[in-house]
Amino acid sequence: MIYDRVALIGLGLIASSMAHAIKAAGLAGEVTGFARSAETRATAREIDLCRVCDTVAEAVAGADLIVLAVPVGAMGDLAAEIAPHLKPGATVTDVGSVKQAVIEAVAPHIPEGVHFIPGHPLAGTEHSGPRSGFASLFRNRWWLLTPPEGCDPAALRRLEDLCRGMGANVDTMDAPHHDLVLAVTSHTPHLIAYTMVGVADDLRRVTDSEVIRYSAAGFRDFTRIAASDPTMWRDIFLTNKAATLDILGRFTEELFALQRAIRLGDGEHLHEYFTRTRAIRRGIIDAGQDTSAPDFGRGEK
Amino acid sequence: MIYDRVALIGLGLIASSMAHAIKAAGLAGEVTGFARSAETRATAREIDLCRVCDTVAEAVAGADLIVLAVPVGAMGDLAAEIAPHLKPGATVTDVGSVKQAVIEAVAPHIPEGVHFIPGHPLAGTEHSGPRSGFASLFRNRWWLLTPPEGCDPAALRRLEDLCRGMGANVDTMDAPHHDLVLAVTSHTPHLIAYTMVGVADDLRRVTDSEVIRYSAAGFRDFTRIAASDPTMWRDIFLTNKAATLDILGRFTEELFALQRAIRLGDGEHLHEYFTRTRAIRRGIIDAGQDTSAPDFGRGEK
Repeated sequence: MIYDRVALIGLGLIASSMAHAIKAAGLAGEVTGFARSAETRATAREIDLCRVCDTVAEAVAGADLIVLAVPVGAMGDLAAEIAPHLKPGATVTDVGSVKQAVIEAVAPHIPEGVHFIPGHPLAGTEHSGPRSGFASLFRNRWWLLTPPEGCDPAALRRLEDLCRGMGANVDTMDAPHHDLVLAVTSHTPHLIAYTMVGVADDLRRVTDSEVIRYSAAGFRDFTRIAASDPTMWRDIFLTNKAATLDILGRFTEELFALQRAIRLGDGEHLHEYFTRTRAIRRGIIDAGQDTSAPDFGRGEK
Repeated sequence: MIYDRVALIGLGLIASSMAHAIKAAGLAGEVTGFARSAETRATAREIDLCRVCDTVAEAVAGADLIVLAVPVGAMGDLAAEIAPHLKPGATVTDVGSVKQAVIEAVAPHIPEGVHFIPGHPLAGTEHSGPRSGFASLFRNRWWLLTPPEGCDPAALRRLEDLCRGMGANVDTMDAPHHDLVLAVTSHTPHLIAYTMVGVADDLRRVTDSEVIRYSAAGFRDFTRIAASDPTMWRDIFLTNKAATLDILGRFTEELFALQRAIRLGDGEHLHEYFTRTRAIRRGIIDAGQDTSAPDFGRGEK
């Protein structure tokens, strides 16, 4: 057991998966939970996710670890609300996809004697809500922590142990670097996927049913990305604005170069580019971040 | 049995999957095969894929169905080469991802009395070569046929039966419409994925190992798309140039609108857009083109 009591605030995909993973591995004596919506709380109670409380104060009272698992835009208000109820020596962490903006919003509210260690598990599905969680979500995924300067080493080690106990690999980095890495590997790809799905939907010359029926590998993978939670993604783009716009600029530049190669019929340029990107994919498989199964896990084989 | 003899020219992912599927369902008396590369022929012989011939003339001699399964840019030369050896009454089809360019390249070489029915199975993986095929690749996928005006109904029905026998759903449309639909659902998404992967690789501020290790859902899905065969994709963009550039123009327009919303902090615009794309994803799951399994088929649950 790593913590006596863990409080999960916000009972969506990440928090509900944490509840399952913590219980499965016996990482905490008790898990409490709170969600703003009465409906979400009722669902969480129905599936016996954890001890669901009707106020956030009750949920965090006496907790050794408090996990802020709400959209990035809601973190600041939540921190202000829980601050008076935090136990001295407790650790507050979050699971937001952006770190600098969360730190700016949350850190000023954290009382003296409470440790704030921002975090971000690189795991998710397109589903949301308390029913969407499962214990193995974090297995072999990365959990990035961005401890502030002067962070208490014991508190950090304890949080790392929890993440590892849920099956994750842990790495630490500073918050601005985190936000740039994520702009490249996640935020900009999501924006692009959203755009492409929107374009397909707008086209009147190709019917909706055709787009849907003939969504071979390419488009189908995009729609999967583009189905993620709208509120979460709105907040990500609004709070990781600089890095996303930076990477988007690079993307547009490269896209225009490829577009020009197509227009000019420059097959050599295209072939060279596509060969290079293929090698990157091989690196990802070698790094164990994905499967090379030829059926893409559709389970039809 | 639908055909006495089927000849597969080019022994990559699609042809090798057809060989397995045809044998598994007993759809042909004999399957012959030919590939330009001696190494590919040796591999195909080693795994006993079909009766592998050392000349394309030998492979197509006496065949009732000839399948051109080579990159789109190689179809014209191949058609010229096989033309003198085709049996009267035989059917020639292809599996290229672009149809108008293939028809322009192939149709002039098809002798009187031979039926040419272009086709395109919407199935694939990121793998290539004779070892990559498997019998269930086409199961529940669409196989689009673009029969020319005045196409022989009996020859068309027979080819449709073969596709269905391999587990595919069959639809017919005209070639220009096919090329537009595919530009939206497959070709443009692939180009965008290639671009994003290239951008990530170019960035020197984010290390390669970081890009690879932290490739959470967004980027990882892109790399999967971007790992497809470079020659095949070069040919697709060069031969479906007009439709791809058309859709790319639309894409850039929409992307700039979203980029502007991020810059201006217009959260409402972003939320509305992302909510709409999420609904499209639901449509694809309802249409049975993908699974809603929350672990993305990583088999970790």
